[in-house]
Amino acid sequence: MAASIANGVNLKGISENGRGKAGGDRANFLEVYDRLKRELLVDSEAFRYTDDSRAWVEKMLDYNVPGGIYAYIHGKLNRGLSVIDSLRILKAGVDLPDEEVFLGSALGWCVEWLQAYFLVLDDIMDNSVTRRGQPCWFRVPKVGLIAVNDGVILRTHISRILKSHFRNKPYYTDLLDLFNEVEYQTAAGQMLDLITTPAGEVDLSKYTIETYLRIVEFKTAYYSFYLPVACALFMVGEDDEKTFSSVKEILVQMGTYFQAQDDFLDCYGAPEVIGKIGTDIEDTKCSWLIVQALQRANSEQKQCLKDNYGKAEHSLVLEVKKVYNELELQRVFLEYEQESYSKLVSMIEEQESEALQVVLKSFLAKIYQRHK
Amino acid sequence: MAASIANGVNLKGISENGRGKAGGDRANFLEVYDRLKRELLVDSEAFRYTDDSRAWVEKMLDYNVPGGIYAYIHGKLNRGLSVIDSLRILKAGVDLPDEEVFLGSALGWCVEWLQAYFLVLDDIMDNSVTRRGQPCWFRVPKVGLIAVNDGVILRTHISRILKSHFRNKPYYTDLLDLFNEVEYQTAAGQMLDLITTPAGEVDLSKYTIETYLRIVEFKTAYYSFYLPVACALFMVGEDDEKTFSSVKEILVQMGTYFQAQDDFLDCYGAPEVIGKIGTDIEDTKCSWLIVQALQRANSEQKQCLKDNYGKAEHSLVLEVKKVYNELELQRVFLEYEQESYSKLVSMIEEQESEALQVVLKSFLAKIYQRHK
Repeated sequence: MAASIANGVNLKGISENGRGKAGGDRANFLEVYDRLKRELLVDSEAFRYTDDSRAWVEKMLDYNVPGGIYAYIHGKLNRGLSVIDSLRILKAGVDLPDEEVFLGSALGWCVEWLQAYFLVLDDIMDNSVTRRGQPCWFRVPKVGLIAVNDGVILRTHISRILKSHFRNKPYYTDLLDLFNEVEYQTAAGQMLDLITTPAGEVDLSKYTIETYLRIVEFKTAYYSFYLPVACALFMVGEDDEKTFSSVKEILVQMGTYFQAQDDFLDCYGAPEVIGKIGTDIEDTKCSWLIVQALQRANSEQKQCLKDNYGKAEHSLVLEVKKVYNELELQRVFLEYEQESYSKLVSMIEEQESEALQVVLKSFLAKIYQRHK
Repeated sequence: MAASIANGVNLKGISENGRGKAGGDRANFLEVYDRLKRELLVDSEAFRYTDDSRAWVEKMLDYNVPGGIYAYIHGKLNRGLSVIDSLRILKAGVDLPDEEVFLGSALGWCVEWLQAYFLVLDDIMDNSVTRRGQPCWFRVPKVGLIAVNDGVILRTHISRILKSHFRNKPYYTDLLDLFNEVEYQTAAGQMLDLITTPAGEVDLSKYTIETYLRIVEFKTAYYSFYLPVACALFMVGEDDEKTFSSVKEILVQMGTYFQAQDDFLDCYGAPEVIGKIGTDIEDTKCSWLIVQALQRANSEQKQCLKDNYGKAEHSLVLEVKKVYNELELQRVFLEYEQESYSKLVSMIEEQESEALQVVLKSFLAKIYQRHK
């Protein structure tokens, strides 16, 4: 995958600065998790634990934040690690002091904590069964709907971490505003998704490309793509609003492309590579594929989609996939992928800062033509 | 009720400054809600609504934040109004400019928003039926578990309001830290409550006075009592940490006394006055009364409590009440009330600032010997 990026994109700097220390960063990143967790579990002026409640929070964190042994083995934690990756590139040529590596990792963990907060709550709302190869947290015995409050606790830990380690930084308030805004956008995106595709109701007329793009932008792109880079920018002292807004535009586009890939792989990816069997069709998901299919289908095909989308029976799922194939959605996706890629590269090359170009291209390189 | 405070407590200043404009403040307070809501429903750089999502959020806010027509008629909104009450007293003698009244009211609404966020989620976790005289939000048709995300949205609105109206104030960061810390404490208190008294499990050995006090302190006292006063203190430029910590200590004590009253009234209050029929015994609540009873009961009475606490049948509830009466818990409560009152008054009178003494005494006056 990394090879395919080579044509046209200059990756100089990434291997030395971004990737070279990746192994070390990953081990270090997990050590930072242990430190942050330890700090959160100590009694403070704000809260005194009981033994039971301390044990509860520790178990809840280990289960949900690093994402269990599955995430550890399968090399997830991309969002969190990308803060330190970006920081290394932005400070190219300068060796990061340990303190900066720690702070970058701590911000990376704040991104992971934010994701854990959303996933714990999303799984409750979607009545999901598994997450990252283990039962969803609310399905663990004795947890149940206490998971709602655990989600809230995860959110409050972000503020605790930021206050402990960034209170005296000139960009502390900016960080608080950033996490608050991204939380707002993600919750708003989740709302759009929930009220557009309510459980047990199928109304494909709502599955337009505009709706799709809006949900993806708010529900996924800000926290997964913009947030880590914005954290790194604050750490290097960036304070030009224009820089933040143009970086935001690019990363939101990239996040949209990433989600379209996800939706594509759900149907066309190899289960043994993506690590799961896709069920977007059964689950009536507002997926990139169904949106494209509805735009292109003739009346007969549309009827077939209406009749079969959102049904659990395998034979009906195959009917949907048959329409996808008739409409050549694999080809449509590859064209969309090429177009997105070119557009992103030219947007990136308009950036004044070379270091920032390298950051953005390294992000793009990580996802372009991915198979998992 | 207000009369009973007179013995020993100087209420000078409250009637002129705190209560005189109360009627006007209340009407004004509701207008500020309309303005804040309008601002939150406009598209911003952060989020673009669809018509459906805008309508959803508006309905959700009206249902949960002012607390519906019931709260309006029954004169709730105490927490929110107490910011502006405190502010008037702290600025005694100076007419508050409209802008200050607006800002104080906006902070009051942030307290109400925070409470709405917790109540929406608590009702889901407790599987409650009604709240403030209407069905719990998650029981409204088409809402269901979307209410979890609505809770998150309520939380994010606090950050939006603070950023819109306080971003350029010198105490903006302090406000963010304050709301973050109080959210953390409340969620931690809720966790203690949830894991101490899990649904469907009765283990009265856990219902100790230490556990009770810890739950009440974190789950209720910080956000209901300390938060509004701390908001007002930041607005008048207070920045002495010692002042905040001594005020916090007093208000946490007052919040504890308030919760004990609540628990007492649940059993001994007049239903037509408190507006509900108490069900703490049926619901296995870790109430002040059961904690006191367990401390005082002989082995036979203890067995009776174990056998009957947490059962829905009326005759079994009466068995519990019989033990309460044998142990003279009404007398025990009245003694506790007198003792709490005296202790609070002497703590208040140790405060250096007279204005602050008046603020704290006005709080105490509002709750001392209350019947609802």
